[in-house]
Amino acid sequence: MSNAPANAPADVAQFVKSQIRTVSDWPQPGVQFRDITPLLGNAKGLRVLIDLFVQRYIDARLDYVAGLDARGFIIGPIVAYELNVGFIPIRKIGKLPYRTVSETYKLEYGSATVEIHEDACGAGDRVVIVDDLIATGGTMLAGKLLLERLGAEVVEGAAIIDLPDLGGSKLLAEAGLPLFTVTSFGGH
Amino acid sequence: MSNAPANAPADVAQFVKSQIRTVSDWPQPGVQFRDITPLLGNAKGLRVLIDLFVQRYIDARLDYVAGLDARGFIIGPIVAYELNVGFIPIRKIGKLPYRTVSETYKLEYGSATVEIHEDACGAGDRVVIVDDLIATGGTMLAGKLLLERLGAEVVEGAAIIDLPDLGGSKLLAEAGLPLFTVTSFGGH
Repeated sequence: MSNAPANAPADVAQFVKSQIRTVSDWPQPGVQFRDITPLLGNAKGLRVLIDLFVQRYIDARLDYVAGLDARGFIIGPIVAYELNVGFIPIRKIGKLPYRTVSETYKLEYGSATVEIHEDACGAGDRVVIVDDLIATGGTMLAGKLLLERLGAEVVEGAAIIDLPDLGGSKLLAEAGLPLFTVTSFGGH
Repeated sequence: MSNAPANAPADVAQFVKSQIRTVSDWPQPGVQFRDITPLLGNAKGLRVLIDLFVQRYIDARLDYVAGLDARGFIIGPIVAYELNVGFIPIRKIGKLPYRTVSETYKLEYGSATVEIHEDACGAGDRVVIVDDLIATGGTMLAGKLLLERLGAEVVEGAAIIDLPDLGGSKLLAEAGLPLFTVTSFGGH
């Protein structure tokens, strides 16, 4: 990872961004939702996107890639497969069948809880956490805490999109988690 | 696909099965839940599993791989990436931001609804639907109907596990959907 670029090449990032569709007023009025389904549905888009993550972590000596429920499940496992490491799902509460460790984090209104299987990884394992988008950063931070409670070292968080105006990337930097994102959008 | 084996080689299927953990009485008493997280977390397990699907469809001239929310999201996108085709998410209601087509299907108690983006694919596109497990077959059948409403041809359904005692694989056969599964378990 030391020799990998910290950011995606500008022309590649622009291609990825061009495949993301903005849906206005979803899931509620005033929100500009960044929809990755056209990117995933385009064979070239999917391959270019994934290869950015693979190249970023190819020499990072990872033991696992973790993905956040549910859009992180679409990206993370491909990266894990390509890097020849295992995949760890971090899920919303009540979805994992075996014994779990859980973390609760604040949302704008209320809170949410995510879980990981207690035997998903162990002491010293090097893990990258993958999601589609960094908004408030709450889920990514909770994922970091869960993995650290299992003894793992969280090398970096990775996402397609950063929404810096929502403060998540700043929160994660303050929490000591390096972040790799392909592109960003202003506003919500 | 015509030259691909209809079933996974017995020793490979046995290896995959050996990596699946049974959790008793989850999510409710009497259920033996088949937990694929140890399989996904094992680098060799993940690779052997995915390669079965890739080999099955490598000459099937697919246009897309579709995955069912949420465990189908872990398997389907890797197969899509490896086959150099796009990935289509089929999601529980209310999760897709753009205009959708929906199908409602019966559960043991009540019903559930799944959706697909109306522009996810088009007339004549060849698609395989991937999920982790075939139980009652309701979600897989709903996925087939959704894709067909968009004009696509559903070539096959694919899953890691069949639970034939729950009747899903029989239901799908009666609905004219060929099914590829790696392994099976008796009981619920």
